[in-house]
Amino acid sequence: MLNFTMSLPTEVYFGRDMINSLPEYIKKHGGTRVLLAYGGGSIRKNGIYDKIVSLLNENGIEFKELSGIKPNPRISSVREGIKIIRDNKLDFILAAGGGSVIDACKGIAAGCTYDGDPWDFYLRKTSLEKKPLPIGVILTLAATGSETNWGTVISDDITQRKLPFRHEFLRPKFAVLDPVYTYSVPKYHTAAGITDIMAHVFEQYFSPTTTAYLTDRMAEAVMRTVIHYAPNVMEDPEDYEARANILFAGTLALNQLLSYGKTTDWATHMIEHEVSAIYDISHGAGLAVLFPNWMKYVLEEDNLQKFIDYAVNVWDVNETGKSRLDIALEGIERTREFFDFLDMPSSLSEFGIDNKRLEEMAEKAVVFGELGTFKKLGKKDVLEILKNSR
Amino acid sequence: MLNFTMSLPTEVYFGRDMINSLPEYIKKHGGTRVLLAYGGGSIRKNGIYDKIVSLLNENGIEFKELSGIKPNPRISSVREGIKIIRDNKLDFILAAGGGSVIDACKGIAAGCTYDGDPWDFYLRKTSLEKKPLPIGVILTLAATGSETNWGTVISDDITQRKLPFRHEFLRPKFAVLDPVYTYSVPKYHTAAGITDIMAHVFEQYFSPTTTAYLTDRMAEAVMRTVIHYAPNVMEDPEDYEARANILFAGTLALNQLLSYGKTTDWATHMIEHEVSAIYDISHGAGLAVLFPNWMKYVLEEDNLQKFIDYAVNVWDVNETGKSRLDIALEGIERTREFFDFLDMPSSLSEFGIDNKRLEEMAEKAVVFGELGTFKKLGKKDVLEILKNSR
Repeated sequence: MLNFTMSLPTEVYFGRDMINSLPEYIKKHGGTRVLLAYGGGSIRKNGIYDKIVSLLNENGIEFKELSGIKPNPRISSVREGIKIIRDNKLDFILAAGGGSVIDACKGIAAGCTYDGDPWDFYLRKTSLEKKPLPIGVILTLAATGSETNWGTVISDDITQRKLPFRHEFLRPKFAVLDPVYTYSVPKYHTAAGITDIMAHVFEQYFSPTTTAYLTDRMAEAVMRTVIHYAPNVMEDPEDYEARANILFAGTLALNQLLSYGKTTDWATHMIEHEVSAIYDISHGAGLAVLFPNWMKYVLEEDNLQKFIDYAVNVWDVNETGKSRLDIALEGIERTREFFDFLDMPSSLSEFGIDNKRLEEMAEKAVVFGELGTFKKLGKKDVLEILKNSR
Repeated sequence: MLNFTMSLPTEVYFGRDMINSLPEYIKKHGGTRVLLAYGGGSIRKNGIYDKIVSLLNENGIEFKELSGIKPNPRISSVREGIKIIRDNKLDFILAAGGGSVIDACKGIAAGCTYDGDPWDFYLRKTSLEKKPLPIGVILTLAATGSETNWGTVISDDITQRKLPFRHEFLRPKFAVLDPVYTYSVPKYHTAAGITDIMAHVFEQYFSPTTTAYLTDRMAEAVMRTVIHYAPNVMEDPEDYEARANILFAGTLALNQLLSYGKTTDWATHMIEHEVSAIYDISHGAGLAVLFPNWMKYVLEEDNLQKFIDYAVNVWDVNETGKSRLDIALEGIERTREFFDFLDMPSSLSEFGIDNKRLEEMAEKAVVFGELGTFKKLGKKDVLEILKNSR
């Protein structure tokens, strides 16, 4: 078990109607004038927008809006948010949505107390020195984990780059997680969110560190939960127990808990970022294609035990009469079948992606150096995984 | 899954030599003049005391000492600590030890900003209104969970009462967890600590809430980890990987993570408090006696599935050809055998406890009302469990 620091201060208000104390949560963290940020308007259809607005109005909390934040959120939205905040002297950011909205808000929060352009953070041209504006979250999708963690991923429309940025200061102050708010998420997005959660666990579970036993068992607990309830939410979108467990799983999958005491990988995410930076496919769908291919590519004698643990502890693969390799491969196969069951794509060609720009994506993926830790990947490896994913 | 609020702000500095930045941790939380509190002096033998003192001295942090805090810590120690702090105008409490030292320090922290007697908090005569003094912890034993949670349990020598008190304000600001610091813990205390950790999980795992699937799987992850590594630490006290995993398990077992979305029980702890308030036996040893008897007493058709999950998911009990009841009973039996393997006592008579005061203990245990939620226990039930434990 490697050394680590743990602190999970974000206040998670989990459950039915927990939004009712929203004004109190905002005031507790010094908010008086709020930027309300959201995406394509689904919160206007399902009533969440009306609920937020009435709570703010009834409690005399002024607010301005930033709407239209897209999946794979753009740095242009970040710049727009910063401008609204500066023009209106706002002091708190309320993100109502999923990962895209939250990630954009983190960029806005950091950019508000920085004189330069917010893209600098993502380009690693500057670090975050001044405390960003406080952020609160109303989560509407089980997927990202961004609601309590320190990361943000933003895309630049012009250079077709999609880059992550992390800082302890970027953790939201609070996150309201009401499973009922995920009832109206369409089947496809529910499935993509489930894929995203599984992918987050994979990035931490598949690690060269073999001594973080407890952390690995916790990761298996999260994966088993997602697998257990996935059929329920696909069948009945208003199954509270299933929605609740998957929502909580999404948060624990990426609040650092599953990374304590070990190195993590993140190669597949970096590869997916290059794909979606160019083709603008949904993050979850890209991961569903790439992960089984990554698993098959990196599997080798040295890490076979990890894949066996995965097969047996997560998928209940029966070991009797099988070779160690067969057990490991069966776990990977079950992963592919699970994504198939979720109607997720299994090849990049389903998005009309041909061979033309694979080399370019592989090149960009390794621009900061080799990817991953479970198995280090150079440009050649990335290209191979991309080809196998076609 | 019931509604809940999650926030785990305590900074855990986990791993080898993490103590080296102790002055920085203290200063970050405003400490300039420190009360260094510890127990019977084991930290003087194993070098931890010298390390702390040299770090404080080198960094110009003044401190006074409170030593001799006993297992089942007394309200008299709490009062003594408050006096030292007031006399010397100290502003930070550093607890170096296990649960007893930390729990006493929480009482001291609360009492320092209260005009009345600190026992009032435990008697529920008053609530904590002013922010207590900040606390930091150097943990020397895997057991309590108190290093990151909000609880404290204190005994009164005179009235032979042992009472808990909880408040969000009581969470330590930081906790240094160096597995090496647990190398010198003697076999008996290592075993009692392991028992304590398992007992903490039991109190949350055995719940009438059946919908907190993820939380239950996390609890199983913690229990499996403890069971996996217990033989290692009993065999080789300097097995870093084993000590580290058990130390982290102790923290996660009682930092609230395993309680999210469900009610918890705590009947067995309340019964144990009455036993150790009178007989001053070690907390872990008392729990080792009581828990298997509690399990057997509360087991019934309605909660059978929980005991089956426990047997199968935690103990790998083979279900083939067995009745549901037999599977459940085998899980309980494995629990008893585990405590036997740890050389923990299996009956109260091993401590020379006879029948004389069982009725008095049962009476005191229910003074605030029925115990538990998994199965509610009145005085008659408590007495029965105590008799079965004799």
